[in-house]
Amino acid sequence: MRIIGIDPGLRNMGWGVISVDGPRLRHIANGIVHSEAGDLGPRLAVLYRGLCEVIAEHQPTNAAVEQTFVNKDAVGTLKLGQARGIALLAPAAAGIEIGEYAPNAVKKSVVGVGHAAKEQIQHMVRLMLPGVELAGPDAADALAIAICHAHHLQGRALRIKIKT
Amino acid sequence: MRIIGIDPGLRNMGWGVISVDGPRLRHIANGIVHSEAGDLGPRLAVLYRGLCEVIAEHQPTNAAVEQTFVNKDAVGTLKLGQARGIALLAPAAAGIEIGEYAPNAVKKSVVGVGHAAKEQIQHMVRLMLPGVELAGPDAADALAIAICHAHHLQGRALRIKIKT
Repeated sequence: MRIIGIDPGLRNMGWGVISVDGPRLRHIANGIVHSEAGDLGPRLAVLYRGLCEVIAEHQPTNAAVEQTFVNKDAVGTLKLGQARGIALLAPAAAGIEIGEYAPNAVKKSVVGVGHAAKEQIQHMVRLMLPGVELAGPDAADALAIAICHAHHLQGRALRIKIKT
Repeated sequence: MRIIGIDPGLRNMGWGVISVDGPRLRHIANGIVHSEAGDLGPRLAVLYRGLCEVIAEHQPTNAAVEQTFVNKDAVGTLKLGQARGIALLAPAAAGIEIGEYAPNAVKKSVVGVGHAAKEQIQHMVRLMLPGVELAGPDAADALAIAICHAHHLQGRALRIKIKT
């Protein structure tokens, strides 16, 4: 199983791919698709093309996208929603099933608590994926989302095993 | 010149294509791309594929998308943002330039005032595009957005003419 995690953002779309072999997680690749300031349509097209290329290259079988929390700034929420639409579309168009996780769930899965600083997440991602070189904080977040999804799927597999 | 207008929505994505020949507007086609309730990713993929098919069939040279107003409901704003991301991506991926208009600007351009009921918009769209059969209110809104963009471009052409 290969999982791509995506941290949606209009300027920086973080992504990270891991492979899952039983309880073992392995880092495959991580990076950031960047879109420069400008008209919204072309920016979204850059993000979409970038994510589609990543998916074509690394062939994930599963995907997970952060369930961004809506904040008080409605204009910011709309912008983020537009970027998040692209983050969901890219795997969906490739026929990949998508898990969605709230930021707190991701933090809890990786750091152990629902509130954690960016640095803590990066530290734990480095511990859980030895040898990983992080392209930046957004890429680290994306790998954390992928790890959270792996834990979720492993837990589900375990529950099925216990039942049968 | 052919303009596609898009009224973004997660359940119903309205679209309408008109041709512009000097001051004359002509209806080409209108419709709705519908996505059933379910997982967000596949819904967005249905909307994206549908809009791409419409663009491939009717070959618009210009596009206009409603600049949806953010409301007090943040969850609704995020949902709408996701659908709007797809509405912008489809023309942008085809290399088509996109105009964005606030709902009030669209109403003002079609009805003459910034506040107008759905029925008034449908009535004016029928008057301005004789013989049009509307696929529904969302398709009528999409045609109104296309008409608004046509007026805007005609005004700009006129201003350039006066200057030169």
